[in-house]
Amino acid sequence: MEELIRQIREFARERDWEEFHSPKNLAMALSVEVAEIAEHFQWLTQTESKNLDRGKLAEVEEEIADVLIYLTRLADRLGIDPIEAARKKMRINAKKYPVETSKGKAAKYSEI
Amino acid sequence: MEELIRQIREFARERDWEEFHSPKNLAMALSVEVAEIAEHFQWLTQTESKNLDRGKLAEVEEEIADVLIYLTRLADRLGIDPIEAARKKMRINAKKYPVETSKGKAAKYSEI
Amino acid sequence: MEELIRQIREFARERDWEEFHSPKNLAMALSVEVAEIAEHFQWLTQTESKNLDRGKLAEVEEEIADVLIYLTRLADRLGIDPIEAARKKMRINAKKYPVETSKGKAAKYSEI
Amino acid sequence: MEELIRQIREFARERDWEEFHSPKNLAMALSVEVAEIAEHFQWLTQTESKNLDRGKLAEVEEEIADVLIYLTRLADRLGIDPIEAARKKMRINAKKYPVETSKGKAAKYSEI
Repeated sequence: MEELIRQIREFARERDWEEFHSPKNLAMALSVEVAEIAEHFQWLTQTESKNLDRGKLAEVEEEIADVLIYLTRLADRLGIDPIEAARKKMRINAKKYPVETSKGKAAKYSEI
Repeated sequence: MEELIRQIREFARERDWEEFHSPKNLAMALSVEVAEIAEHFQWLTQTESKNLDRGKLAEVEEEIADVLIYLTRLADRLGIDPIEAARKKMRINAKKYPVETSKGKAAKYSEI
Repeated sequence: MEELIRQIREFARERDWEEFHSPKNLAMALSVEVAEIAEHFQWLTQTESKNLDRGKLAEVEEEIADVLIYLTRLADRLGIDPIEAARKKMRINAKKYPVETSKGKAAKYSEI
Repeated sequence: MEELIRQIREFARERDWEEFHSPKNLAMALSVEVAEIAEHFQWLTQTESKNLDRGKLAEVEEEIADVLIYLTRLADRLGIDPIEAARKKMRINAKKYPVETSKGKAAKYSEI
């Protein structure tokens, strides 16, 4: 992950894109990229969404990559370590959604 | 990252949330979480977005964590390694946006 | 609709919000509001999404209102008549998706 | 607006798209369409976003049309009158954001 962060940073620096990569713009770009994932799933049933063919899967993989790249870039611009932030959040979630009371109740509680 | 993937997987399994975590639902949840990042930035100027106070930064950190968690979960359900996907995409981007022709032209080209 | 446009315009003017209501900011706010609709549906099955109870329906109604308000405001700031734009688009769609070839093929074609 | 609602309804009915047009799917499609608006603005400054050239403006107009079409369709499937909902919401907003206390304070309050 650290390698990826450095790579993206270098990529933007070489192209003089720092100016465009304000947290505001990156947040906006991130939401655009996420929609490109959603686009692949919008008309599918749940079952179909679990059984993508190889071509579709490769396309979704590329969109997931884009989201991770922008998310990493945004975090980097804000001085945030995304993996560490996610670990911390998982500890909060473990307390917020105890196994006993959350079991199978995803309609309300499945927010990880 | 692998540790995070396993942790999220275990978290969902313990709570019987597999059923709710279809790729379709996760893609939708991902777009909801990304909007929670965007919400913090929507009325800010570019400059303000670079200078968040500590409280706001902690809130954004939590939203970034949520996005990474759902993105990781979605990738895992599809059998995709998100870091590897991002590395592959960065190689594609390096060809797509050569340094010489892309320099400072972010309005059109700053899509990493 | 014209009355709504005028009402929103007046509302923003009275509060000196013109400065914040750049098309860029409004586009961002619009995506935040749409996510608030999506949030209600993210863990539901298709069938459940057709059978919201009264309380949930009232909440979704309020989010739909928010989206229409921001969309109307954005269109107004750009000098666009949204109803006229939609009518024009429906004529384009009618040609793009002829009844004979599009019937029941929404997975690919159901983009209105 | 009523005419537009009927037109969209008829359009979907003729193509047997009712099955795909669950509120869940439409909410997802709506968020995809909104991102297509956001995409045009993501790297622009606030000022640039107010001064789109004619070609760009025509593209944004088409995306605004798409959002209005899906929003109208979603509302129709839920039995909601979007204009009436927006009018009701504007009355709520007028109480929530009194002119005196909200003036020029959009960073916090400019949510219409």
